[in-house]
Amino acid sequence: MTQRIDFQVDPNHYRHWRVTYEGDIAQLYMDVDEKGGLFEGYELKLNSYDLGVDIELADVVQRMRFEHPQIKTVVLQSGKERVFCAGANIRMLGVAAHAHKVNFCKFTNETRNTFEAAGRESGQHYICAVKGACAGGGYELALACDHILLPDDGASNVALPEVPLLAVLPGTGGLTRVTDKRKVRRDIADVFCSLEEGVRGRKALDWHLVDEVVPTSRFAESVAARARQFADQSNRLAAHGGVSLTPLQRSFGADGSVTYSSVEVSFDRQTRVATITVHGPQMPLESVAQLHEQGAAAWVLRATRELDDAILHLRLNELETGVWAFRTQGDAELVMQNEAVLLAHQNEDWLCREILLYWKRVLKRIDVTSRSLVALIEPGSCFAGMLAEIAFSVDRSYMAEGDFEGDNRPAAALHLTASNFGTFPMANDLTRLQTRFLGDPEKVEAAAARKGEPLEAVDANEMGLVTFCLDDIDWADEVRIFLEERASFSPDAMTGMEANLRFPGPETMETRIFGRLTAWQNWIFQRPNAVGEKGALKRYGSGVRGEYDLRRV
Amino acid sequence: MTQRIDFQVDPNHYRHWRVTYEGDIAQLYMDVDEKGGLFEGYELKLNSYDLGVDIELADVVQRMRFEHPQIKTVVLQSGKERVFCAGANIRMLGVAAHAHKVNFCKFTNETRNTFEAAGRESGQHYICAVKGACAGGGYELALACDHILLPDDGASNVALPEVPLLAVLPGTGGLTRVTDKRKVRRDIADVFCSLEEGVRGRKALDWHLVDEVVPTSRFAESVAARARQFADQSNRLAAHGGVSLTPLQRSFGADGSVTYSSVEVSFDRQTRVATITVHGPQMPLESVAQLHEQGAAAWVLRATRELDDAILHLRLNELETGVWAFRTQGDAELVMQNEAVLLAHQNEDWLCREILLYWKRVLKRIDVTSRSLVALIEPGSCFAGMLAEIAFSVDRSYMAEGDFEGDNRPAAALHLTASNFGTFPMANDLTRLQTRFLGDPEKVEAAAARKGEPLEAVDANEMGLVTFCLDDIDWADEVRIFLEERASFSPDAMTGMEANLRFPGPETMETRIFGRLTAWQNWIFQRPNAVGEKGALKRYGSGVRGEYDLRRV
Repeated sequence: MTQRIDFQVDPNHYRHWRVTYEGDIAQLYMDVDEKGGLFEGYELKLNSYDLGVDIELADVVQRMRFEHPQIKTVVLQSGKERVFCAGANIRMLGVAAHAHKVNFCKFTNETRNTFEAAGRESGQHYICAVKGACAGGGYELALACDHILLPDDGASNVALPEVPLLAVLPGTGGLTRVTDKRKVRRDIADVFCSLEEGVRGRKALDWHLVDEVVPTSRFAESVAARARQFADQSNRLAAHGGVSLTPLQRSFGADGSVTYSSVEVSFDRQTRVATITVHGPQMPLESVAQLHEQGAAAWVLRATRELDDAILHLRLNELETGVWAFRTQGDAELVMQNEAVLLAHQNEDWLCREILLYWKRVLKRIDVTSRSLVALIEPGSCFAGMLAEIAFSVDRSYMAEGDFEGDNRPAAALHLTASNFGTFPMANDLTRLQTRFLGDPEKVEAAAARKGEPLEAVDANEMGLVTFCLDDIDWADEVRIFLEERASFSPDAMTGMEANLRFPGPETMETRIFGRLTAWQNWIFQRPNAVGEKGALKRYGSGVRGEYDLRRV
Repeated sequence: MTQRIDFQVDPNHYRHWRVTYEGDIAQLYMDVDEKGGLFEGYELKLNSYDLGVDIELADVVQRMRFEHPQIKTVVLQSGKERVFCAGANIRMLGVAAHAHKVNFCKFTNETRNTFEAAGRESGQHYICAVKGACAGGGYELALACDHILLPDDGASNVALPEVPLLAVLPGTGGLTRVTDKRKVRRDIADVFCSLEEGVRGRKALDWHLVDEVVPTSRFAESVAARARQFADQSNRLAAHGGVSLTPLQRSFGADGSVTYSSVEVSFDRQTRVATITVHGPQMPLESVAQLHEQGAAAWVLRATRELDDAILHLRLNELETGVWAFRTQGDAELVMQNEAVLLAHQNEDWLCREILLYWKRVLKRIDVTSRSLVALIEPGSCFAGMLAEIAFSVDRSYMAEGDFEGDNRPAAALHLTASNFGTFPMANDLTRLQTRFLGDPEKVEAAAARKGEPLEAVDANEMGLVTFCLDDIDWADEVRIFLEERASFSPDAMTGMEANLRFPGPETMETRIFGRLTAWQNWIFQRPNAVGEKGALKRYGSGVRGEYDLRRV
């Protein structure tokens, strides 16, 4: 799979989804083009999906928030007659490399999480009208919605048949949402997840698998009523018009480097390091009105979209790049000024709120990225407020102390703002500073007392905000040694270590999906019982069942 | 590895540990016999350990509670000069089968957890006097103690070198305890876990890796003072003498069946099912005095030890047995009567308390066992109180309704007692009934209102206490179909599914060790970067570093 996977799509060219809008309610139809697979070798039958289908879905969800801010309920449904969705395409899973499968699951998980986040944080609720067979990843789509309706038509059903049929897990949050969101009794969950054929009608309701079972004759009407109810109860901020998510400015260099308007990605292929530089804004943001007027051209939205795209590109297309080094360059005061407009108006202006929520999602993508992450806080940098949060997302940070010879940029300084103390919680529901100082909560207080001040290296180090503080003499060597060392470690051990160290403290459904469920799924995706020549995934559709090594591990 | 691993050991034949007792303080010396490995092919150099070493340690911890109940502090230390413990033996890990590695880690994790449980629940505190190199599993032993002392001798250190050296994780709780117990800052944890050479002296203290750093000249004295302090602050119940854990009555049949005095294990090799039958007591327990007099012969302690041994035997020696079916037979009233004596006196009698705590640990072993678990609640059974808890540990339960033709045993009935409502919390700190009814907490209340009553199948089913209620006509077929179905599924998918469904609700350090850390470790233990011919584990000691597939997953 050497083709570059592009995460930028255009609604005019969707192959798999249709959306219609009426007032504050959108109808979202899944209607997968069988011939529209991202790779060769499989057909997307029965509304099954691959990464390409999910890239479009993520785009739908994103544009819903920015381009259609008046929408309060999205009704997810099938555009096909007898099937809702058969889940992830099995043949695709059978031929895909391990890394692709894992990255695919991570991205689909992130998209499912945005359904729930849209309702919770933004008053844009996804409800699901299941009609026809709804299996595996199909039911996991439904599980991510705020409400599931099922017609009592003797045919429509929900199922998680992965275990009996494919020897893998419902790994896109299915197991976690069944027990923790829907709180299905654990023994009933065991029975449900062992049933190839799924559950229909009244039983699906009794088992808490759906929220409503409705006679076929009243299904459309019930869905409409429920959509209306969610819209009426939504706390979404008032919005007229929207902001068009115009195409990104992006160009690829021959060496793979990527240049956006405010983000750059460059590579050192020797040490397998990608350096991601975010440039701060060049101008103050005058007002909320100006923000709306600038729309996707405003620095804060532009930088957010560009960083998001860069992350997804690097994750899927640059698998051998083991370290991401984050840099910033620019004027910290301008970063804080731009951010301050959003913070000041987030409770009454939908766009201010949406941009902050989007930045929060981008930071969460960083948190769950299986690469070693480092921040290089150099002269001329602008790790301030929302950008400083990047320095608290990474595995470790190096900060330059004082002036560097022959470098006339200002000495490196961190700037904390209100946004570092609650605007961007991690998946564990703590701020990154709370997570960092789990053992020393008073350090969060001490940091809060110094909001707005330039915190140079010695100070920042003393406050515990950076890992290392290095002067001109040591900087280059120490950073080089670290990068070389990291490049010499086993990529798998790094992934496992980082997944465990990054999320201390409380757990949520989200941390469990990425931490526990994903890890088990990854394990199973390695096991011959699933992916070996005689494994269930490989044999699927051949009429011959998988042959298993029977030893329990 | 076809030899049977025996979990029963006798202190007179320990090869790796020595214990001395003085007053309320015990000195525990790790002094591993290089030639005493459980299998051929490796030597246990530098106080490294294998399962055999850990079986002895588990025995030490267990006997400490029962045979030496006056002990309030246990000082864990090395019996060798320059090394504390080098961790799990690498050559052993290099040659062991995947299932053995995973089971080995599970057992060692359970033993580490008992250190902490002994202090928290039972006032028997483990403190660790590290002297010499303390690396990997060695430091994980220290991490499980309530206090770690380190001499500032320029040589003694603590390290987690697994990632840089072996391409695996510190998988015996190390990563979890560093971030969640010791609350080491996550970036410092990242640095620490990347250092082959570990950390010494003052820095180990500054990084929160140890609790005390002491000049060499005062080390012995400081350890003694700390041991004294923990003993003085202990809330351990007064105890004189102890109860000798005499050898189990146990015999193996030619077909592998195991017969104890009150527990039996039989096999259906076709469906790969082990049936574990626990027999209730034959007599009432007259008094606490009688309990002390009977000691290890008392039904409640005997049954607990026997079930514990059966579980460990099945886990390690019967890998292809995919399903464990739990049965009980006996008089429910007698079970409740025996248990009632313990419950009534647990706050003043150390033995009553210790037996209940032991039963709690056995139930926790069941919870984390990677086998499909089912309870068959049949006529003549005695699932009452502590035994009923087994029926709430399993993945699903089948209960027989009414009389069975040709069977004159009393109809099946569940009996709830006070012990089902707080005595045996799971690793998630909830009772099994709270976990079961996470979505319907009022059902816990409803169940509590019917303590002591015989709850026959229809009632138990209505109350949500069992998965299926079946009469004479359906019983045999339904149970057979379930067992055959389970036998046809991929063992790996079962393991992953059960690990996710069994622990809804809150997470604790314990659930994270078994759920998240273990899953990642299992994944890495499958990856060629660790276990392939060119992997780090295989190449360890050859002077050649591992060669890695560099793609990040």
